[in-house]
Amino acid sequence: MEKLICGVDLGGTKLAAALFKQDGSRIDMVITHDHTDLNPDEIVLRIAALVRELLSENNLNLDDLLGVGVGLAGHILHKEGMIITSSNFKNTIHHFPLVGKLEKELGGVKVFLDNDANAQALGEFKYGAGRDGDYDSLVYMTISTGIGAGLVLNRKMYRGQSGTAGEIGHTIIDIDADSKCTCGNYGCLMALSSGLFFPELYKRKLEKGIFSTLGVTIETAGQVDGHLVNRGFKEGDPVSIAIVEDSADMVGFGIFNIFQLLNPDVVVLGGGLMNFGDSFTNRIREKFCSLTNEMMCEEMGILVSEMGTDAGLLGAAALVLE
Amino acid sequence: MEKLICGVDLGGTKLAAALFKQDGSRIDMVITHDHTDLNPDEIVLRIAALVRELLSENNLNLDDLLGVGVGLAGHILHKEGMIITSSNFKNTIHHFPLVGKLEKELGGVKVFLDNDANAQALGEFKYGAGRDGDYDSLVYMTISTGIGAGLVLNRKMYRGQSGTAGEIGHTIIDIDADSKCTCGNYGCLMALSSGLFFPELYKRKLEKGIFSTLGVTIETAGQVDGHLVNRGFKEGDPVSIAIVEDSADMVGFGIFNIFQLLNPDVVVLGGGLMNFGDSFTNRIREKFCSLTNEMMCEEMGILVSEMGTDAGLLGAAALVLE
Repeated sequence: MEKLICGVDLGGTKLAAALFKQDGSRIDMVITHDHTDLNPDEIVLRIAALVRELLSENNLNLDDLLGVGVGLAGHILHKEGMIITSSNFKNTIHHFPLVGKLEKELGGVKVFLDNDANAQALGEFKYGAGRDGDYDSLVYMTISTGIGAGLVLNRKMYRGQSGTAGEIGHTIIDIDADSKCTCGNYGCLMALSSGLFFPELYKRKLEKGIFSTLGVTIETAGQVDGHLVNRGFKEGDPVSIAIVEDSADMVGFGIFNIFQLLNPDVVVLGGGLMNFGDSFTNRIREKFCSLTNEMMCEEMGILVSEMGTDAGLLGAAALVLE
Repeated sequence: MEKLICGVDLGGTKLAAALFKQDGSRIDMVITHDHTDLNPDEIVLRIAALVRELLSENNLNLDDLLGVGVGLAGHILHKEGMIITSSNFKNTIHHFPLVGKLEKELGGVKVFLDNDANAQALGEFKYGAGRDGDYDSLVYMTISTGIGAGLVLNRKMYRGQSGTAGEIGHTIIDIDADSKCTCGNYGCLMALSSGLFFPELYKRKLEKGIFSTLGVTIETAGQVDGHLVNRGFKEGDPVSIAIVEDSADMVGFGIFNIFQLLNPDVVVLGGGLMNFGDSFTNRIREKFCSLTNEMMCEEMGILVSEMGTDAGLLGAAALVLE
């Protein structure tokens, strides 16, 4: 039997693992939420236990695995198998050699580690929106609490000098902006469009006199999140609509800059804000097209992630086949 | 004897060709200015004649050549050996298969074609500022009449889907700007910093009440060019100083965006505006460092091109060895 690949999605609230055939079809999956109080070494043991559990429940053993891929948010050194930082955990991880430790717990099965955006880019390239296109280059852009990207260039993951390539959210598109990003700079793409900044964006719209039909006031705007804006957007709240439209426009500028710098075959969009739906995606495409001429606009595809709930797991598993 | 490589720099006013050893050392060079009235087919003949002339004057023949690389400004399809557009010529070139035609004229010697920024990026990577660094990724940025870049990623040229990767000059860094670029958009990096826009930038400074010690007025600002601004900058003209400082700051923003998206080992700066000198380069570095934290700022080198007058020729020749 062809060996299987295993993907592990190490999230802030969810720890999931799944077995896949090399063609991307899923054999089994397990999801837990009991890792958040564990320290890094305990998390390694927990992941190893999940992998062994998945195998034994399917009458398989470690020899049936080609390898295990682990994806998580944070600053990762892929080649070194090291987590530099990740804020996803109660016990914040710093310079933690996850790959070496997990390989030891799994009897030498090969383990691969990368940040979630890179893993998902690879997943989209092999199994998702990029699988049928015979593409040489794909940029996966996640639009969520923050904004990030993973780059597949010349048919290979491109990670940069220290593993931080793809930080499109911190590129500056408005040098005159007064919206300060978490990084300390002003006018970063994510400060103008991502979920983390919806409280501030909502407050600014209210200050401009736009009326909230959700009952949000300047005093309560701090509690606004993506879910509320999504509800407001769909129920016709003028503030939510304005925020979603602005966000789409800013993402359109970001994709235009990716297009100018990287001229990729395709940009694939994923992340929580894609739940805003087709009108969000269409407005992103319209903004992008308004910045290019018509020929160029048709030349580069802007697609929506096709991996759905499997994205994190299948992306992580794809690291094994890189 | 190891075979030689030949580089051809097909400029708007200058047509040059040079023979190099594969280690980058130059054997001979010829420069002409008589091609500007020629049609594309005649230019092919002129290039072939220059190459044969270089060879015969050095008692060499076509068999001594490993290949010929041609670099020029414009939209080039490297793989297809095709010039899509180039505005460098009186008889504008459209969809011209230069490689096939020149190979025929040179008895089948392999010919390689790319835009000048890509060729120079490759040249810097192999022979210039990037040669000793054991770098995996290098971005060459040319700051001149316009602004462009060539990308060496994962130790390979990255050209994008249609050969237009590296158009950093048309990335938008100020979505609110009222400065319109040649591409029709507002707030492109090059519209805020490159030589082509010095007349407009000079005029705006005058309108703000900054006094020109060069005697330039709002009416004559249209004639300002890089040479005049360079003179003014060195002679203490307040308008020229303000323009050069603004330009450096904008380039710093551009490099910061490259850093966030590509996290390269090194950015190498070339092009005519580098003649502004060390204070220009230093201000670019300062702006970049002010946008990163100290560690990141030291992590990525910002170097000045080391290929000098050979840049175009050696870069083109490097295409042969890619």
